[in-house]
Amino acid sequence: MVDCIIVGSGLAGISAALTLKANGKSFLLFGSPNLSEKIEKAELIRNYPGLADVSGKDFVKALQAQLTAAEIGIKNEKVAGVYAMKEKFTVMTQEQNVYESKTVILACGVESVKQLDGEEAFLGRGVSYCATCDGFLYKGKTIAVFCTSKRLEHEIGYLADIAAKVYLIPMYKDVEISRENVEIIRKMPKKIDGVKRVERLVFAAPPTENIPAELPIDGIFMLRECVSPAILVGGLQTENGHVVVDRNMSTNLKGCYAAGDCTGRPYQYTKAAGEGNIAAHAVSEFLK
Amino acid sequence: MVDCIIVGSGLAGISAALTLKANGKSFLLFGSPNLSEKIEKAELIRNYPGLADVSGKDFVKALQAQLTAAEIGIKNEKVAGVYAMKEKFTVMTQEQNVYESKTVILACGVESVKQLDGEEAFLGRGVSYCATCDGFLYKGKTIAVFCTSKRLEHEIGYLADIAAKVYLIPMYKDVEISRENVEIIRKMPKKIDGVKRVERLVFAAPPTENIPAELPIDGIFMLRECVSPAILVGGLQTENGHVVVDRNMSTNLKGCYAAGDCTGRPYQYTKAAGEGNIAAHAVSEFLK
Repeated sequence: MVDCIIVGSGLAGISAALTLKANGKSFLLFGSPNLSEKIEKAELIRNYPGLADVSGKDFVKALQAQLTAAEIGIKNEKVAGVYAMKEKFTVMTQEQNVYESKTVILACGVESVKQLDGEEAFLGRGVSYCATCDGFLYKGKTIAVFCTSKRLEHEIGYLADIAAKVYLIPMYKDVEISRENVEIIRKMPKKIDGVKRVERLVFAAPPTENIPAELPIDGIFMLRECVSPAILVGGLQTENGHVVVDRNMSTNLKGCYAAGDCTGRPYQYTKAAGEGNIAAHAVSEFLK
Repeated sequence: MVDCIIVGSGLAGISAALTLKANGKSFLLFGSPNLSEKIEKAELIRNYPGLADVSGKDFVKALQAQLTAAEIGIKNEKVAGVYAMKEKFTVMTQEQNVYESKTVILACGVESVKQLDGEEAFLGRGVSYCATCDGFLYKGKTIAVFCTSKRLEHEIGYLADIAAKVYLIPMYKDVEISRENVEIIRKMPKKIDGVKRVERLVFAAPPTENIPAELPIDGIFMLRECVSPAILVGGLQTENGHVVVDRNMSTNLKGCYAAGDCTGRPYQYTKAAGEGNIAAHAVSEFLK
C-alpha cells in the first residue's frame, strides 16, 4: 500500500508528486504520458512565475524532464473509481486493476463540456463513464457514445466491437474511427430520457434531414478526459461541480485531498501548482 | 490611483503582478530589486514545477528577466503602513511617500525571527519598526536596534546619526557598520520592559562580563525584512501571526487580499505563487 495516490497529471498532480517525492513519501501518479491536454494545447502562458512566455508544448517538455530527473513515473491508467474504506483508499482503474493507498489527492481537472440533462439521473441505469467496465452490458445492443477527445477513440473501438450499433457524438474534429456500425452524429443532444432506464436520446427541435428528433438507445457512454469528481469518489462533497476543500485542500473525506481546477476557479496553472503543493504537505502531515 | 498595490516582491507578489498585468490592471509592486532574500539564499529548489533543481540565484534571475520582459517595475520603497479608507487604501512608505489604490495584496512574507516579549505591548511607546519615520524622536537619546538582516544596515547608520548611543543586536553575521556610538551586543534579549514607555532591555540571567542583566534605553527599533501584517495594516485579522484568508485570499478588510508565507504554512515557493495568482484574480473580480 502506497502513502498516496494522485489522480491526474496536470500541474496540480505534478506539483503534488514533486513535493511528496521531496518529502520521501511513496505514491502512484495516475495520468497520461503527455501529462495534460490542456497544457499541451496552450499557445502561450504569460503569467507562470519563472517561465516567461512559455508555450504549452515547451512547458510539457520541461515538466516531463523534471519528472524523469526526479524518478517519478506516470501510471498510464484511467481511474474509474475511488472508494474510501475504513483506514485506506481503494482505487480501481478502467484497465481493471486495483490499487490501495493511505491517502488520495484528486487532481483530475475540470471538464469544459457541460453535463447533459439526465446524465446524473440515469447514472448506473444506462449512463456509464467507463467503456471497459460496463461495455459488456451492451452486447448486441444500440448505444450512444458522447466523446470529448480524440485521445479516447480507442474506447469507442472497444464499444463498437461489442454493441450492434453505435451513435457517436464527437466533441472534436477529425474523427478517425471508421466502423460499419458506428454512425457519427454532429449535433448536441438536448437530454437523455427514459423511465426506469435510459430509453432515448432527445435532440433539440427541429429535426434535420439526417438526425431525427430522438434516437432510441439502450445506453450511453460519456467519454471525457476528466470524470466529475463526485462521480469518481462516492460521498465526496461538491458544489457546482467543484470539490469543496478547506485552506488545507482537505475534502469532507478523511485522508482525501483535492487540488487544481477540480476545486474551482481560477483555472490557472500557477494556482493548480500551488494547491498541489499544499495538498502534498497536508498528506505528509496526515501520515504522521 | 492605481487598481492595486502589491506589498512584497517574493513569489506571491511576483505571481500577482504577472497576473494583474495579463488582466490589464494598473498596479504598484513594492519590494526589493533583488526580489527576495529568501529565494536568493535558497541553495536548491527541488519541487517547483517547471524549473528542475533550480538554485535560488538562478530563480531570481529568471524572475527578474520575466518581470523586465513584462515591463513590470519594482518600487524600491519599504511599506510602513497600509490604511483602509472608505473606498480606497492609502499606503505610506518609510521613504515618506504616500500612494493610493483601490485594492491591496499583502505578500509581505513571514519573519522567521520571533517577536520579542513586550514588542507588541510597547508598540508606539518606544518600539518602532521604521527608522526614517520615528528616528527623529530619539535625538541625543539611547536606543537599541534589533536587526535581522545585513540589508537593513543603512537604517542603523541613519539612527546612529541621530541617537547619542545605539546598542545593536544583530541577527546576522559580518556586521559591517562601524561607528563610535554603536555597540554590538551578541545576546538575545529576553524582553522589552518599562512602565508607560520602554525603559530597559532585559537579558536572560546570568549576566556575562560584557552584557549586564539589563540595559537602560529610551526606545528600540525592530528592523526586519518582513513587518508583521497585523502591524502593517490596522484592523487586519490575524491568527498566530498569519493573516486570516478565505479560499479567495480575501482578508477581513474589503478589497484587501493576502498571499504567500504571510497567510501560513507551508512556506513554499509553489504555494506562494499559486496564492498570488488567486489573489490577483480576486482583485480583478472585485474591481468589476
